[in-house]
Amino acid sequence: MLNDKIPLHEEEWFEKLAIKIFSDIGNLTKDKIGISRESYGRGETLGINYIIDLAEEFGFYVEKDDAANIVLSLDKSIQSNYILVGSHMDSVPQGGNFDGLAGVVAGFLLLANLKEKKIRTSLPVKVLILRGEESAWYGKNCIGSKALFGLLSSEDLKSTHRTTGNKLSEAMNASGAKLDLIKNSKSLINSKKIEVFIEIHIEQGPVLVDKDWPIAIVTGIRGNYRHHKIRCKGDAGHSGTIPRYLRKDAVFAGADLITRMDDHWNTIEQHGGDLVLTSGIFHTDIDNQAMSRIPGEILFSFESRSQDISTLDALEALLRSECKTIERERGVHFEFDNVIKSYPAECNQEVVEKLLDASESLGFSRVSVASGATHDAAIFSNQGVKTGMIFIRNDKGSHNPDERMEVKDFMKSVSTLDKFINDY
Amino acid sequence: MLNDKIPLHEEEWFEKLAIKIFSDIGNLTKDKIGISRESYGRGETLGINYIIDLAEEFGFYVEKDDAANIVLSLDKSIQSNYILVGSHMDSVPQGGNFDGLAGVVAGFLLLANLKEKKIRTSLPVKVLILRGEESAWYGKNCIGSKALFGLLSSEDLKSTHRTTGNKLSEAMNASGAKLDLIKNSKSLINSKKIEVFIEIHIEQGPVLVDKDWPIAIVTGIRGNYRHHKIRCKGDAGHSGTIPRYLRKDAVFAGADLITRMDDHWNTIEQHGGDLVLTSGIFHTDIDNQAMSRIPGEILFSFESRSQDISTLDALEALLRSECKTIERERGVHFEFDNVIKSYPAECNQEVVEKLLDASESLGFSRVSVASGATHDAAIFSNQGVKTGMIFIRNDKGSHNPDERMEVKDFMKSVSTLDKFINDY
Repeated sequence: MLNDKIPLHEEEWFEKLAIKIFSDIGNLTKDKIGISRESYGRGETLGINYIIDLAEEFGFYVEKDDAANIVLSLDKSIQSNYILVGSHMDSVPQGGNFDGLAGVVAGFLLLANLKEKKIRTSLPVKVLILRGEESAWYGKNCIGSKALFGLLSSEDLKSTHRTTGNKLSEAMNASGAKLDLIKNSKSLINSKKIEVFIEIHIEQGPVLVDKDWPIAIVTGIRGNYRHHKIRCKGDAGHSGTIPRYLRKDAVFAGADLITRMDDHWNTIEQHGGDLVLTSGIFHTDIDNQAMSRIPGEILFSFESRSQDISTLDALEALLRSECKTIERERGVHFEFDNVIKSYPAECNQEVVEKLLDASESLGFSRVSVASGATHDAAIFSNQGVKTGMIFIRNDKGSHNPDERMEVKDFMKSVSTLDKFINDY
Repeated sequence: MLNDKIPLHEEEWFEKLAIKIFSDIGNLTKDKIGISRESYGRGETLGINYIIDLAEEFGFYVEKDDAANIVLSLDKSIQSNYILVGSHMDSVPQGGNFDGLAGVVAGFLLLANLKEKKIRTSLPVKVLILRGEESAWYGKNCIGSKALFGLLSSEDLKSTHRTTGNKLSEAMNASGAKLDLIKNSKSLINSKKIEVFIEIHIEQGPVLVDKDWPIAIVTGIRGNYRHHKIRCKGDAGHSGTIPRYLRKDAVFAGADLITRMDDHWNTIEQHGGDLVLTSGIFHTDIDNQAMSRIPGEILFSFESRSQDISTLDALEALLRSECKTIERERGVHFEFDNVIKSYPAECNQEVVEKLLDASESLGFSRVSVASGATHDAAIFSNQGVKTGMIFIRNDKGSHNPDERMEVKDFMKSVSTLDKFINDY
């Protein structure tokens, strides 16, 4: 075992340990394509068991919490406030090896470093290995962290597996989660004892690669306001016979709306606002469309994401008012569904600053970025826990086997976290 | 029969004759819904036979041309140039009663008026009752007029019926068309002898209703440039994690293009240009779209129609150059199909003026309009025949049972044509 073979004083020791853990867990959970670590299922449990075994070899104290997440620490009994570090073990089906696991391995290395170097931090550290973060298996995300805070509804627990149709509650039960406690919607953790929660995660977007930043500190996790289905109704008609002033063309109206929203987006971004807009589904009526027919109807989705709830509210208001204007100008009518809101989660400003300080003091860039994807960290933040995140540069996106995180970059996130904790 | 019962000197005599013909042919060709007069089929032949019988009662000379169209005249043998008046007998499946038939009845009334009132016009008049104008049956339009000018290709003749799969050539043959001559692609008519061709037709758009014009003189028939399928390719991606400056969003690019073309359209129209633009099909990739996925691809159709070939050429050039600009600005790529061009047909300026004079002298508005739909008149015009058209106000569009032409309006078109011919 690595612990015995590599001299403790060498810097590369930790890097080799990281490579070994990534490689071992990757091999254990290999699928035909990519990696599959099913939430509350085989791959996730294989990964967790590997970590438990290794933790015991390292002499860490291992605990399973009431939601079947794993907690590692250096002390058997921590009474004081503590620093919690963690991420999730599961992956999407046929995904990559680093989404989630990077944060788990980072926590493990952090404990190993403290232990091997006999470092005493001002506050003790716990490492949390969460289950069930990926919504791909049961259609719900962050199950492990939500369970911890009593946030799973009985509806959530009845969610069924994407292929087998088995219930989430049964899979959780089989993994050792205490369903009777979870069903009570009470918190299984005393959040007041968590001084700060830090999650290290690969970036699931292209910004760090584009900017050539190995790591960046996350400022917040974007919330989103979503319209699944907005209908724009005009009047269908012969494309040759109806002049401009008598047309009620749904495609021209929809294009006008998108372009106006794009202009607002640009303006908001020019003024420093955080925002992304997407209309992932946009189409004329498939059963009733023709090249020579003025389109009488379109259906489209519209999603805005931002770190700032005020930006999301403003965008939603702009969307409605632009639709009203277009209705007047183009004789169409927009039919809205209900907006579905998922609120942003802020990273704690003081924690962000301290992480930036740590990063800068190690010679890395003092840079920050918003998280577009959601993370367990958002659950902690929204429960009032001071939260921070470090992103690691990662090419080729996530949720696919081509995730490409470099271990050199990963080690910078671990050093930053280590520095942050030591300075805390 | 009407001819015997109504005193010839009464103005309403002609109107009652018109009502009777519309009603009789409508009843003969009634379908479960609306009217069906199949090209080279049952309803079209029933209508033609009705007109032949009535023409013989009126003492008109009836002739079947080599393409199985019917020609009515007052003289057995016309050697001089002549004025040709006509339209088509067929309808779309389950369509309305007036699309085509209005022009046939107008020609019939014109001859009846000349005969009953013993009017001698400077040039003799022939009435042409065309077959096969509607593309709904065999996928080809203006078959009867194209056949007359030797414009049907062997491919056209192999076209198959929408439901039975029977060949057009067989249906034409059964109707009495001389296939051996038609296959030779030679003109079956001496177009030099046609002094002018006039078609009366219901408007298939809403302009006359909107303007409150009972009739209008047609300035030209719009041609069109068509793209069945333009593909815009960007990059798909997670809607939350990719910031604006790194996006290659196909929907935002497509909306930008439509909006730019809409602006050009507006400008061209402000400067008096004739143009309509339509993107009847516009959609994200149906197999690969999601609300939270940046759309990596859209497919859309794009059609421009104008009376002026220079406007169509300009629009096509603008379409290409705007795509180039958007490619640079948004990192997407547009893949074009071949543009399919159908050239505009001009109405003869002198004929248009004379029709406007005739209309004005009868106390009707001196107004003109472009035809968005195509007509047999376009075939004559493009063969170098001086051509004019009169549109009759018609609510509820065409190609549906709700066509709503008022006989009072129809009679104004007949009077205008009568005046035009008498003044010629």
